[in-house]
Amino acid sequence: MRFEILVLGNSSATPIYDRHPTAQILNFNEQLFLIDCGEGTQMQLHRYGIKSNKISRIFISHLHGDHYLGLVGLLSSMNLTGRMSELHLHGPAPLLEILNLQFKHSDTTLRYNLIFHPTNPDEEEVIMKSQMLTVRSFPLLHRVPTTGFRFDEGARAASLISEKIEGMNIPTVFFQQLKKGMDCTDLDGTVYRATELTKPAPPSRSYAYCSDTRAFATYIDAIYGVDLLYHETTFEHSLLDRAVETLHSTSLEAAQVALQAGVKRLLMGHYSARYKDLTPLLEEAKAVFDESVLSFEGNWYKV
Amino acid sequence: MRFEILVLGNSSATPIYDRHPTAQILNFNEQLFLIDCGEGTQMQLHRYGIKSNKISRIFISHLHGDHYLGLVGLLSSMNLTGRMSELHLHGPAPLLEILNLQFKHSDTTLRYNLIFHPTNPDEEEVIMKSQMLTVRSFPLLHRVPTTGFRFDEGARAASLISEKIEGMNIPTVFFQQLKKGMDCTDLDGTVYRATELTKPAPPSRSYAYCSDTRAFATYIDAIYGVDLLYHETTFEHSLLDRAVETLHSTSLEAAQVALQAGVKRLLMGHYSARYKDLTPLLEEAKAVFDESVLSFEGNWYKV
Repeated sequence: MRFEILVLGNSSATPIYDRHPTAQILNFNEQLFLIDCGEGTQMQLHRYGIKSNKISRIFISHLHGDHYLGLVGLLSSMNLTGRMSELHLHGPAPLLEILNLQFKHSDTTLRYNLIFHPTNPDEEEVIMKSQMLTVRSFPLLHRVPTTGFRFDEGARAASLISEKIEGMNIPTVFFQQLKKGMDCTDLDGTVYRATELTKPAPPSRSYAYCSDTRAFATYIDAIYGVDLLYHETTFEHSLLDRAVETLHSTSLEAAQVALQAGVKRLLMGHYSARYKDLTPLLEEAKAVFDESVLSFEGNWYKV
Repeated sequence: MRFEILVLGNSSATPIYDRHPTAQILNFNEQLFLIDCGEGTQMQLHRYGIKSNKISRIFISHLHGDHYLGLVGLLSSMNLTGRMSELHLHGPAPLLEILNLQFKHSDTTLRYNLIFHPTNPDEEEVIMKSQMLTVRSFPLLHRVPTTGFRFDEGARAASLISEKIEGMNIPTVFFQQLKKGMDCTDLDGTVYRATELTKPAPPSRSYAYCSDTRAFATYIDAIYGVDLLYHETTFEHSLLDRAVETLHSTSLEAAQVALQAGVKRLLMGHYSARYKDLTPLLEEAKAVFDESVLSFEGNWYKV
């Protein structure tokens, strides 16, 4: 089952070197979510072959322009291209006021159902829950109210051991029960044991998204143990003063967070315009946490 | 003296085929003006080597997203990159409310002086006047209050005939007076006649910008006789119903406007996403008005 991130933008506030403001697509089992929506996101979606009308849910971390200025254009284009399906939008409460003001003056009436869910910048909350997936928002530490997001896959099914199944003539109606760990009995009394016929379920996967923030202990619990952590790495550690002043993180700090939070892999991004070559940021992170990778636009990253 | 338009975006509301929402740079004697500012304009400026901090004045025609959604990002980036010089912004009155709301929630305080001038959607007005240039706004006919803009160069100076000047030892202090048509007398009584030593001033040039609008007689006077007219050509005339419904113009109608208004050249744009190949739009316009040209992004057009 697919659980992957497509990076659409990896630039900090001043876009340069054909790097774009922050946006990511999360493909979870062919459901598409958009995380942040910097200016130009609709063009980036087009560039990388993502149909925007397939996005069912949008998550906005905070109201700095490089994280949400593409939203009004994207929502309007969805309208123009005939979107009918409902769209859920999670973000800071004032976002709704901003959207409504712009829709009012552009005389825009959405023909699809946009459902707004304000995020809570003060404490962790479950903001979506199904059997397959749980999404939480949690507070980050930035200049305006900001949340991160964590996506936890639900319990995964065991899989049948095909070599054992073949030729056994097990009624296919039993397959789902076996995968859930339940033994099944045939009409003639044959018993099929789940423990014998299935491989145990693979562990559930999880993704956490942290941008923008000072690297801080407060959200370590919220991101603990994820398979993939996206964490902003705006500056090298030699520019710590600048990171403190602007409430961003250095590459070294992000790597320390990844280490403390026991995550499997760190995905870096939100690079300052001063870095044309990103190698120094990567080397700094890897020195602390070897499983650090640079995010590049247009690349998919498996959770 | 330079008087040229750089097209940064020529797409209508749904950007596609690497065409971008509307924006143009007007270079008038190395003063840079920005006309409309669709989403992604700051990236387009960068792509075509325009330093955004050199823009002194911005004109926004109306509050449909594809004409102004790049503005907050551009103004914020100017702030981040240390702009100090004042910036004049002309646009519909509610634009200020939209900007202020977004600046408030992003905790943005501009460190340069942004001076807002609301446009009048009901009648023609002079919105800037100097000896060199007069700018007017005038009402267009669209779904929300919309204005066009007209840029008229002031009287140009005559130029000296260099072949005659050479070897005459005319004091250089006389050059400006001669160009203004005034005769000059040397200390030894020699008279230098402006009519003999100068070529007459070339005619003043003018540019008009019309997007978006139903093609209509009401603004013919406002754009009369310009050297270059930018007029939207969203649809072919076979889609007249669609143009009427959305208050846009067909290519044929824009050419009729150009003809009636006695302009020298028509620059086309704001192409619907249905046209990958723009030839049909061009052919339709040229059949009515031969001096029609398609605008392409990244190209400069002389006024």
